[in-house]
Amino acid sequence: MTKIELIQQIRTKKSFLCIGLDPDLSKIPQHLLDSEDPIFEFNKVIIDATNDLCVAYKPNLAFYECYGSKGWNSFEKTVNYIPKDCFIIADAKRGDIGNTSRYYAKTFFETYSCDAVTVAPYMGSDSVLPFLENPGKWLVLLALTSNDGASDFQFQEMKDGRKLYESVIEKSMNWGTDESLMFVVGATKAKEIEKVRKLAPNHFFLVPGVGAQGGKLEDVVKYGSNNECGLLVNSSRGIIYASNGVDFGYEARKEALNIQIEMALYVEQFNW
Amino acid sequence: MTKIELIQQIRTKKSFLCIGLDPDLSKIPQHLLDSEDPIFEFNKVIIDATNDLCVAYKPNLAFYECYGSKGWNSFEKTVNYIPKDCFIIADAKRGDIGNTSRYYAKTFFETYSCDAVTVAPYMGSDSVLPFLENPGKWLVLLALTSNDGASDFQFQEMKDGRKLYESVIEKSMNWGTDESLMFVVGATKAKEIEKVRKLAPNHFFLVPGVGAQGGKLEDVVKYGSNNECGLLVNSSRGIIYASNGVDFGYEARKEALNIQIEMALYVEQFNW
Repeated sequence: MTKIELIQQIRTKKSFLCIGLDPDLSKIPQHLLDSEDPIFEFNKVIIDATNDLCVAYKPNLAFYECYGSKGWNSFEKTVNYIPKDCFIIADAKRGDIGNTSRYYAKTFFETYSCDAVTVAPYMGSDSVLPFLENPGKWLVLLALTSNDGASDFQFQEMKDGRKLYESVIEKSMNWGTDESLMFVVGATKAKEIEKVRKLAPNHFFLVPGVGAQGGKLEDVVKYGSNNECGLLVNSSRGIIYASNGVDFGYEARKEALNIQIEMALYVEQFNW
Repeated sequence: MTKIELIQQIRTKKSFLCIGLDPDLSKIPQHLLDSEDPIFEFNKVIIDATNDLCVAYKPNLAFYECYGSKGWNSFEKTVNYIPKDCFIIADAKRGDIGNTSRYYAKTFFETYSCDAVTVAPYMGSDSVLPFLENPGKWLVLLALTSNDGASDFQFQEMKDGRKLYESVIEKSMNWGTDESLMFVVGATKAKEIEKVRKLAPNHFFLVPGVGAQGGKLEDVVKYGSNNECGLLVNSSRGIIYASNGVDFGYEARKEALNIQIEMALYVEQFNW
């Protein structure tokens, strides 16, 4: 999906919501465990209940590959089931030397038809570039994550006064354009989002950490949006585990709708 | 496998060789492509031909998951086929927020019985810790990688004068002991290996970059070993693609033997 198409989806659906598909067998409704593929059955209900309210889904690979090849089958079925008007982010946090990264890119862009994959920057340019060579496909680079551990390295101050995450953003902007590169910018760091937006005025940000982790949508919009929206705000647990009863699809929709209603106000207010 | 057991294997086999299992369908002998599972058939021959000469195998997940669930089946068969006296490193470069990293640890330590998994440090402590909670299992943390891109961030100087990779090593040594934590230290940076050894005198290093990438075994031993060896030196392409004919197992063995003979001299010379 191109940038223009993504922005069009945001306008059409009045939403910039991304729903994280992190299916955990210990948390999903227990009546699904008897089915042949509980993970896919769970995702199917969530996708049916929410796909008109969100513009993206983000399956987190850890929750699939821990079940081995069976889990990868569930991932494949999930990716194929997601409607074509939704952007698909493989949240895989990959990254290796150039030749190897090329295979990871092949995995998520060819073997599975995802639009984007999350990548860690530690190994530098040659680990990142192979993900940027695929027209219409996206690399979502970890810049400023929403977890506590972000302070260990991402916030370390460099000799030139910049923090490591600022350096990651500035360098990587030479590697890809705003039509192939997005950044992960955690919602739990509202003031930093503003800094990142100044560094990267035109890039989309994937923003985790709203809801369960404490980030506020209002702050993310205030500090992180640009004149084309420029945001995909993710919620996982708050939506998909809204209920663990037979009504889980209905309850997930209610939660997604609450967020989408707030988002629609912003889309209209700022005329995105 | 515990540290004592690993050192015992190094003494018994007079080798600290790790063989990278990066099966690429465009490079493996073409006669294997007709078999039901070419990747596993290739690995099987390599393992049969070399397991008395190496102490570890390192399957690189990118080369398996690009074939989807079928590739993960080949990975599973490979892990199960590797003899019990060999240390198995899942070269997966994972790392995510704590709850997610726990699932990645489960994948490689429980779903598949690997001894170790490679992890990227960018997301900090909570992304790393779940890999260190499993007795007898290992986290191999990226510190100083062998690729060109390493210079982009790993060598950046921090405000306190340290380079980022030094900070990664120093901080992470508070998270795990030398019985659960190893570091990736690229052979292409011989002088830096000496610095890393000073920072982490007792930890094992996984050293890629010898051979095809230009690093020399002699330098790695000189600058990187400790009094228990403390090294797993990896070679992938130089061994597994020594020939692409029907003699590929024989030629792989020859290459591995060349390295093992040199290693045996060091094991004896330094009385490891």
